[in-house]
Amino acid sequence: MEQQVYNGPIPLQLDPQKSSASYVIGADIGGTNLRLALADMSGRIMGTWSTSTAGVREPQSVVELIRHGVDSLLCQASLTHTALCAIAAGAPGVTNSELGIVIATSYLMGWRNVPLRDLLEADFGLPAAVDNDVNMAAIGEHRAGAAQGVSDFVFLAVGTGVGAGIMINGKLLHGTAWTAGEIGYMLVPGAPEAPVERGTPGAIESLVGGEGIKKVWQGRWSEERTPVSKEATATEIFDAALAGDALAKQVLQLSSRTLAYVIYNISLILNCPLFVLGGSVGLHPALGNAARAELEQRRARVQPELVCSGLGSDAQLIGAIHLAIDTAKAHRFVA
Amino acid sequence: MEQQVYNGPIPLQLDPQKSSASYVIGADIGGTNLRLALADMSGRIMGTWSTSTAGVREPQSVVELIRHGVDSLLCQASLTHTALCAIAAGAPGVTNSELGIVIATSYLMGWRNVPLRDLLEADFGLPAAVDNDVNMAAIGEHRAGAAQGVSDFVFLAVGTGVGAGIMINGKLLHGTAWTAGEIGYMLVPGAPEAPVERGTPGAIESLVGGEGIKKVWQGRWSEERTPVSKEATATEIFDAALAGDALAKQVLQLSSRTLAYVIYNISLILNCPLFVLGGSVGLHPALGNAARAELEQRRARVQPELVCSGLGSDAQLIGAIHLAIDTAKAHRFVA
Repeated sequence: MEQQVYNGPIPLQLDPQKSSASYVIGADIGGTNLRLALADMSGRIMGTWSTSTAGVREPQSVVELIRHGVDSLLCQASLTHTALCAIAAGAPGVTNSELGIVIATSYLMGWRNVPLRDLLEADFGLPAAVDNDVNMAAIGEHRAGAAQGVSDFVFLAVGTGVGAGIMINGKLLHGTAWTAGEIGYMLVPGAPEAPVERGTPGAIESLVGGEGIKKVWQGRWSEERTPVSKEATATEIFDAALAGDALAKQVLQLSSRTLAYVIYNISLILNCPLFVLGGSVGLHPALGNAARAELEQRRARVQPELVCSGLGSDAQLIGAIHLAIDTAKAHRFVA
Repeated sequence: MEQQVYNGPIPLQLDPQKSSASYVIGADIGGTNLRLALADMSGRIMGTWSTSTAGVREPQSVVELIRHGVDSLLCQASLTHTALCAIAAGAPGVTNSELGIVIATSYLMGWRNVPLRDLLEADFGLPAAVDNDVNMAAIGEHRAGAAQGVSDFVFLAVGTGVGAGIMINGKLLHGTAWTAGEIGYMLVPGAPEAPVERGTPGAIESLVGGEGIKKVWQGRWSEERTPVSKEATATEIFDAALAGDALAKQVLQLSSRTLAYVIYNISLILNCPLFVLGGSVGLHPALGNAARAELEQRRARVQPELVCSGLGSDAQLIGAIHLAIDTAKAHRFVA
């Protein structure tokens, strides 16, 4: 399936003036925040906007929030709606990008089979595209980040959970049920083996994800062993490890070894030369550096390069911009 | 890269009569045996031939053996060389199918960067194609076995070692260095974590591969615990497990659980709906049945179907026949 091509119905309400429209909207719908960017057809960002999504769960309410943000962005840029030619949105869950349907998100949103693309097209009268947020970040890194010019790579998002966006021959791998890259439940040495139910953190997430790292920390924490707070976050624990705290170093080692095992296993299967590490926890340099050292010991089998995200926390948003640009171009071509 | 298309130079010595040629040769080059089949353009096998490759290591000697076998097959079928329009060979190692080069095989052959396709084309004056033996088996299962009509599946070859042939959107995944699917070193719970050097069995091979299973058996064996021979092979151990031997059941459980973990991990990454189990050890029904039961416990996350090879030990050979047919067709189209 060709991810970057607009396949949906052509909206009937297209304004003839739109042929000269030359701006797009990229949206990053998160469990706690909504971020938007207005960009031109070269991907240059003209403005960004964000708001909390706390308490907002209904898909139509999210679309209204997006509409509100788009109005604000256009106003700031002294543009009108006729300046827009496409919109793309990343959603925090399993997404059928071909039909534009968000199949399932985590408990924060609780979406099931939401036709997000149709909702956006109906609301904006513009061609729209949607994909999973991790895949969106992979598009971003591919087009404007650490994987520019690389047709085969894996984007690893390490945040509360762990997910992968897999690019093969320049195309995203979605899988037959749109769950490719949902690696949070991968089984590696040291990870819990017991089957887990939906909604609970996966095997590697309990060692590499933000919540898992906190739990490991709290399980090992005692006042005698460390002056660092028992309530430290994953990145604070990594900071403490870099500052020499022995317990924090242990926890960092466990996380980074587990991450290295994940990268190693994916490398064996896909023989993919590049891994780009992102996400709120993955962006901490300590994790990537320690995982790289672990991988170094296994170079006899695989030699993947592990680099830090080039776009940081903007990867999804920039991916959405580029998907919107592709969607606009494909639409013009079709129309 | 399009695996089934003939990309090589068009041989200069083509006989004009060849335009009416309508038979192909499939070859399966193993570490201990060479097997050949003569087939028509529908894939119907007209005859097979095999010989030992013990002591034969030189690539040119292997090509001479193939030539000898082809002569024999043609003679049996009352055909001449002009009846042939292509040949394809599976090699037991990492193979660049685009350039037709066998990059590396195990110690049995010891090949490094052997231009096998060119050697075959020069010797036979026919378009030739080569690939890794596990990929060849995947082609076989896809075209004539358990994965017919399925565009996304993984063929798992469990023999002395463990390897995978990965088909995505109807095309083999080769990886950037032609090692995709070399999963013998995958790290799963229960498998040894220590890095291993080239030439030694990988982590999961030590628990699922034929030699590994024998070692586990011998490590746990004692006369008091089982009447089964200490020198039993993997399939004999599986037979004993089915017959109720407690120690053999333990070993089968360890192997099948490890295999289930491998399938589970690949499923998470690729979201691939079908796994086809083959290879000399994998063809034993006890392994697949026990692995299927293990996977059943984890259906909340992935629901891959695990089926037994439809072609058994002929998978590679039948894959080679189909690759030869594709090569002949592509060559005619180009010529």
